[in-house]
Amino acid sequence: MEITHIEHIGIAVKSIEEQLPYYEGILGLKCYNIETVEDQKVKTAFFMVGQTKIELLEPTSDESTIAKFIEKRGEGIHHIAYATKNLGESLKEMESKGVRLIDQQPRGGAEGLNIAFLHPKSTGSVLTELCEHPE
Amino acid sequence: MEITHIEHIGIAVKSIEEQLPYYEGILGLKCYNIETVEDQKVKTAFFMVGQTKIELLEPTSDESTIAKFIEKRGEGIHHIAYATKNLGESLKEMESKGVRLIDQQPRGGAEGLNIAFLHPKSTGSVLTELCEHPE
Repeated sequence: MEITHIEHIGIAVKSIEEQLPYYEGILGLKCYNIETVEDQKVKTAFFMVGQTKIELLEPTSDESTIAKFIEKRGEGIHHIAYATKNLGESLKEMESKGVRLIDQQPRGGAEGLNIAFLHPKSTGSVLTELCEHPE
Repeated sequence: MEITHIEHIGIAVKSIEEQLPYYEGILGLKCYNIETVEDQKVKTAFFMVGQTKIELLEPTSDESTIAKFIEKRGEGIHHIAYATKNLGESLKEMESKGVRLIDQQPRGGAEGLNIAFLHPKSTGSVLTELCEHPE
Protein backbone atom coordinates (compact mmCIF):
# COMPACT_ATOMS: atom_id res chain seq x y z
CA MET A 1 0.00 0.00 0.00
CA GLU A 2 1.21 3.48 -0.83
CA ILE A 3 -0.02 6.23 1.49
CA THR A 4 0.69 9.70 0.09
CA HIS A 5 -0.58 11.96 2.90
CA ILE A 6 -3.19 12.38 5.59
CA GLU A 7 -6.36 13.18 3.66
CA HIS A 8 -8.32 14.40 6.68
CA ILE A 9 -8.87 14.23 10.41
CA GLY A 10 -12.48 13.67 11.43
CA ILE A 11 -13.71 15.44 14.56
CA ALA A 12 -17.10 14.67 16.14
CA VAL A 13 -18.99 17.81 17.19
CA LYS A 14 -22.49 18.45 18.47
CA SER A 15 -22.87 21.55 16.32
CA ILE A 16 -20.75 22.77 13.40
CA GLU A 17 -22.16 26.26 13.85
CA GLU A 18 -20.93 26.41 17.45
CA GLN A 19 -17.42 25.35 16.36
CA LEU A 20 -16.98 27.88 13.55
CA PRO A 21 -15.81 30.73 15.84
CA TYR A 22 -12.94 28.50 17.02
CA TYR A 23 -11.85 27.12 13.64
CA GLU A 24 -12.34 30.34 11.69
CA GLY A 25 -11.99 33.11 14.28
CA ILE A 26 -9.24 31.62 16.44
CA LEU A 27 -7.28 29.21 14.22
CA GLY A 28 -7.85 31.38 11.14
CA LEU A 29 -8.92 28.45 8.93
CA LYS A 30 -11.59 28.85 6.24
CA CYS A 31 -14.60 26.55 5.97
CA TYR A 32 -14.79 25.89 2.21
CA ASN A 33 -17.53 23.25 2.10
CA ILE A 34 -20.49 22.07 4.17
CA GLU A 35 -22.07 18.86 2.96
CA THR A 36 -24.60 16.38 4.32
CA VAL A 37 -23.82 12.68 3.85
CA GLU A 38 -27.30 11.16 4.05
CA ASP A 39 -26.37 7.51 4.46
CA GLN A 40 -24.00 8.34 7.31
CA LYS A 41 -26.51 10.71 8.92
CA VAL A 42 -23.93 13.45 9.32
CA LYS A 43 -23.39 17.01 8.27
CA THR A 44 -19.72 17.69 7.47
CA ALA A 45 -17.71 20.92 7.35
CA PHE A 46 -14.26 21.07 5.74
CA PHE A 47 -11.21 23.28 6.38
CA MET A 48 -7.95 22.93 4.44
CA VAL A 49 -4.71 22.94 6.46
CA GLY A 50 -1.77 22.35 4.11
CA GLN A 51 -2.34 18.94 2.49
CA THR A 52 -4.87 17.84 5.08
CA LYS A 53 -8.50 18.64 5.77
CA ILE A 54 -10.14 19.05 9.13
CA GLU A 55 -13.58 17.44 8.78
CA LEU A 56 -16.12 18.36 11.44
CA LEU A 57 -18.84 15.73 11.79
CA GLU A 58 -22.22 16.73 13.23
CA PRO A 59 -24.87 14.04 13.64
CA THR A 60 -28.17 14.69 11.83
CA SER A 61 -29.95 11.88 13.71
CA ASP A 62 -29.64 10.13 17.07
CA GLU A 63 -29.05 6.96 15.05
CA SER A 64 -25.85 8.33 13.54
CA THR A 65 -22.63 6.60 14.61
CA ILE A 66 -21.34 10.11 15.38
CA ALA A 67 -24.23 10.71 17.80
CA LYS A 68 -23.36 7.43 19.52
CA PHE A 69 -19.67 8.32 19.64
CA ILE A 70 -20.43 11.68 21.28
CA GLU A 71 -22.83 10.06 23.74
CA LYS A 72 -20.19 7.54 24.79
CA ARG A 73 -16.95 9.58 24.64
CA GLY A 74 -17.94 13.21 24.21
CA GLU A 75 -16.92 15.50 21.39
CA GLY A 76 -13.41 15.08 20.01
CA ILE A 77 -11.20 13.47 17.38
CA HIS A 78 -13.09 10.61 15.73
CA HIS A 79 -10.83 9.20 12.99
CA ILE A 80 -7.76 9.61 10.77
CA ALA A 81 -8.06 9.19 7.01
CA TYR A 82 -5.01 8.30 4.92
CA ALA A 83 -4.93 8.98 1.18
CA THR A 84 -3.90 5.94 -0.83
CA LYS A 85 -3.47 5.42 -4.56
CA ASN A 86 -5.34 2.18 -5.09
CA LEU A 87 -8.00 1.63 -2.47
CA GLY A 88 -9.38 -1.68 -3.79
CA GLU A 89 -5.94 -3.28 -3.86
CA SER A 90 -5.02 -1.74 -0.51
CA LEU A 91 -8.06 -3.37 1.09
CA LYS A 92 -7.21 -6.77 -0.38
CA GLU A 93 -3.62 -6.42 0.82
CA MET A 94 -4.77 -5.48 4.31
CA GLU A 95 -7.23 -8.32 4.50
CA SER A 96 -4.51 -10.76 3.44
CA LYS A 97 -2.41 -9.43 6.32
CA GLY A 98 -5.20 -10.11 8.83
CA VAL A 99 -6.55 -6.55 9.21
CA ARG A 100 -10.24 -6.47 10.16
CA LEU A 101 -12.15 -4.30 7.67
CA ILE A 102 -15.36 -2.40 8.37
CA ASP A 103 -15.90 -1.88 4.64
CA GLN A 104 -14.95 -4.88 2.47
CA GLN A 105 -15.27 -2.75 -0.67
CA PRO A 106 -14.71 0.97 -1.37
CA ARG A 107 -17.85 3.08 -1.03
CA GLY A 108 -18.69 6.72 -1.72
CA GLY A 109 -17.83 9.26 0.98
CA ALA A 110 -17.96 13.05 1.38
CA GLU A 111 -16.32 15.22 -1.31
CA GLY A 112 -16.66 12.51 -3.97
CA LEU A 113 -13.93 10.28 -2.54
CA ASN A 114 -13.93 6.49 -2.48
CA ILE A 115 -13.45 5.43 1.12
CA ALA A 116 -13.26 2.42 3.43
CA PHE A 117 -12.91 2.12 7.19
CA LEU A 118 -10.65 -0.30 9.04
CA HIS A 119 -11.68 -1.69 12.41
CA PRO A 120 -10.00 -0.10 15.45
CA LYS A 121 -9.26 -3.61 16.76
CA SER A 122 -6.67 -3.89 13.98
CA THR A 123 -5.31 -0.33 14.14
CA GLY A 124 -4.26 0.22 17.76
CA SER A 125 -7.72 1.59 18.72
CA VAL A 126 -7.53 4.39 16.14
CA LEU A 127 -10.58 4.41 13.86
CA THR A 128 -8.88 4.59 10.46
CA GLU A 129 -10.20 5.43 7.01
CA LEU A 130 -8.51 4.96 3.67
CA CYS A 131 -9.47 7.30 0.81
CA GLU A 132 -8.74 7.62 -2.87
CA HIS A 133 -9.70 10.20 -5.43
CA PRO A 134 -11.90 8.47 -8.02
CA GLU A 135 -9.71 9.43 -11.03
CA MET B 1 -2.19 33.45 13.47
CA GLU B 2 -0.92 31.69 10.39
CA ILE B 3 -1.18 27.92 10.40
CA THR B 4 0.82 26.32 7.57
CA HIS B 5 0.02 22.61 8.02
CA ILE B 6 -0.68 19.88 10.52
CA GLU B 7 2.69 19.23 12.11
CA HIS B 8 1.70 15.95 13.76
CA ILE B 9 -1.06 13.82 15.20
CA GLY B 10 -0.28 12.41 18.64
CA ILE B 11 -1.53 8.90 19.40
CA ALA B 12 -1.39 7.41 22.91
CA VAL B 13 -0.18 3.79 22.94
CA LYS B 14 0.76 1.36 25.67
CA SER B 15 3.75 0.08 23.72
CA ILE B 16 5.45 1.54 20.64
CA GLU B 17 7.02 -1.85 19.94
CA GLU B 18 3.61 -3.52 19.76
CA GLN B 19 2.35 -0.87 17.30
CA LEU B 20 5.27 -1.07 14.85
CA PRO B 21 3.87 -4.08 12.91
CA TYR B 22 0.73 -2.03 12.15
CA TYR B 23 2.40 1.26 11.23
CA GLU B 24 5.32 -0.26 9.33
CA GLY B 25 4.07 -3.66 8.19
CA ILE B 26 0.46 -2.76 7.35
CA LEU B 27 0.41 0.98 6.57
CA GLY B 28 3.90 0.86 5.07
CA LEU B 29 5.16 3.91 7.00
CA LYS B 30 8.75 4.16 8.23
CA CYS B 31 9.65 4.99 11.83
CA TYR B 32 12.49 7.50 11.41
CA ASN B 33 13.01 8.57 15.02
CA ILE B 34 12.41 7.25 18.53
CA GLU B 35 13.02 9.80 21.28
CA THR B 36 12.32 10.02 25.00
CA VAL B 37 11.01 13.34 26.32
CA GLU B 38 12.03 13.13 29.97
CA ASP B 39 9.98 16.00 31.37
CA GLN B 40 6.81 14.63 29.72
CA LYS B 41 7.62 11.06 30.80
CA VAL B 42 6.98 9.69 27.33
CA LYS B 43 8.79 7.77 24.66
CA THR B 44 7.86 9.00 21.18
CA ALA B 45 8.09 7.36 17.75
CA PHE B 46 7.72 9.36 14.54
CA PHE B 47 6.50 8.42 11.06
CA MET B 48 6.31 10.91 8.17
CA VAL B 49 3.09 10.91 6.09
CA GLY B 50 3.32 13.70 3.49
CA GLN B 51 3.67 16.97 5.44
CA THR B 52 2.47 15.47 8.71
CA LYS B 53 4.01 13.20 11.31
CA ILE B 54 2.29 10.45 13.22
CA GLU B 55 3.70 10.64 16.77
CA LEU B 56 3.17 7.58 18.93
CA LEU B 57 3.31 8.42 22.64
CA GLU B 58 4.18 5.67 25.12
CA PRO B 59 4.24 6.53 28.82
CA THR B 60 7.52 5.86 30.62
CA SER B 61 5.90 6.31 34.06
CA ASP B 62 2.46 5.85 35.62
CA GLU B 63 2.67 9.58 36.43
CA SER B 64 2.76 10.52 32.74
CA THR B 65 -0.29 12.38 31.41
CA ILE B 66 -0.30 9.76 28.63
CA ALA B 67 -0.58 6.94 31.18
CA LYS B 68 -3.53 8.77 32.75
CA PHE B 69 -5.14 9.35 29.35
CA ILE B 70 -4.86 5.63 28.50
CA GLU B 71 -6.21 4.63 31.90
CA LYS B 72 -9.23 6.89 31.47
CA ARG B 73 -10.01 6.59 27.74
CA GLY B 74 -7.90 3.73 26.41
CA GLU B 75 -5.35 3.94 23.62
CA GLY B 76 -6.15 6.26 20.72
CA ILE B 77 -5.73 9.70 19.21
CA HIS B 78 -4.48 12.12 21.87
CA HIS B 79 -3.92 15.48 20.18
CA ILE B 80 -3.53 17.49 16.97
CA ALA B 81 -0.55 19.79 16.51
CA TYR B 82 -0.70 22.69 14.07
CA ALA B 83 2.47 24.30 12.70
CA THR B 84 2.49 28.07 13.07
CA LYS B 85 5.08 30.67 12.09
CA ASN B 86 5.27 32.74 15.25
CA LEU B 87 4.31 30.77 18.31
CA GLY B 88 4.86 33.50 20.92
CA GLU B 89 2.65 35.96 19.06
CA SER B 90 0.07 33.27 18.30
CA LEU B 91 -0.28 32.52 22.02
CA LYS B 92 -0.72 36.20 22.85
CA GLU B 93 -3.32 36.54 20.11
CA MET B 94 -5.21 33.49 21.37
CA GLU B 95 -5.13 34.66 24.95
CA SER B 96 -6.50 38.04 23.87
CA LYS B 97 -9.36 36.17 22.18
CA GLY B 98 -10.20 34.31 25.39
CA VAL B 99 -8.58 30.95 24.58
CA ARG B 100 -7.49 29.05 27.69
CA LEU B 101 -3.80 28.13 27.40
CA ILE B 102 -2.11 25.17 29.08
CA ASP B 103 1.31 26.67 28.31
CA GLN B 104 1.51 30.45 28.66
CA GLN B 105 4.91 30.48 26.97
CA PRO B 106 6.50 28.27 24.30
CA ARG B 107 8.53 25.39 25.70
CA GLY B 108 10.79 22.74 24.16
CA GLY B 109 9.11 19.63 22.75
CA ALA B 110 10.18 16.52 20.86
CA GLU B 111 12.28 16.93 17.69
CA GLY B 112 13.61 20.32 18.80
CA LEU B 113 10.34 22.18 18.23
CA ASN B 114 8.95 25.00 20.33
CA ILE B 115 5.48 23.98 21.44
CA ALA B 116 2.50 25.04 23.54
CA PHE B 117 -0.77 23.30 24.36
CA LEU B 118 -4.23 24.89 24.34
CA HIS B 119 -6.87 23.71 26.76
CA PRO B 120 -9.57 21.40 25.30
CA LYS B 121 -12.20 23.60 26.98
CA SER B 122 -11.37 26.27 24.40
CA THR B 123 -10.91 23.98 21.39
CA GLY B 124 -14.11 21.94 21.12
CA SER B 125 -12.69 19.16 23.35
CA VAL B 126 -9.75 18.53 21.02
CA LEU B 127 -6.43 18.69 22.85
CA THR B 128 -4.51 21.05 20.57
CA GLU B 129 -0.81 21.86 20.31
CA LEU B 130 0.85 24.67 18.39
CA CYS B 131 4.42 24.16 17.14
CA GLU B 132 7.11 26.20 15.48
CA HIS B 133 10.53 25.34 14.19
CA PRO B 134 13.07 27.31 16.26
CA GLU B 135 14.72 29.00 13.25
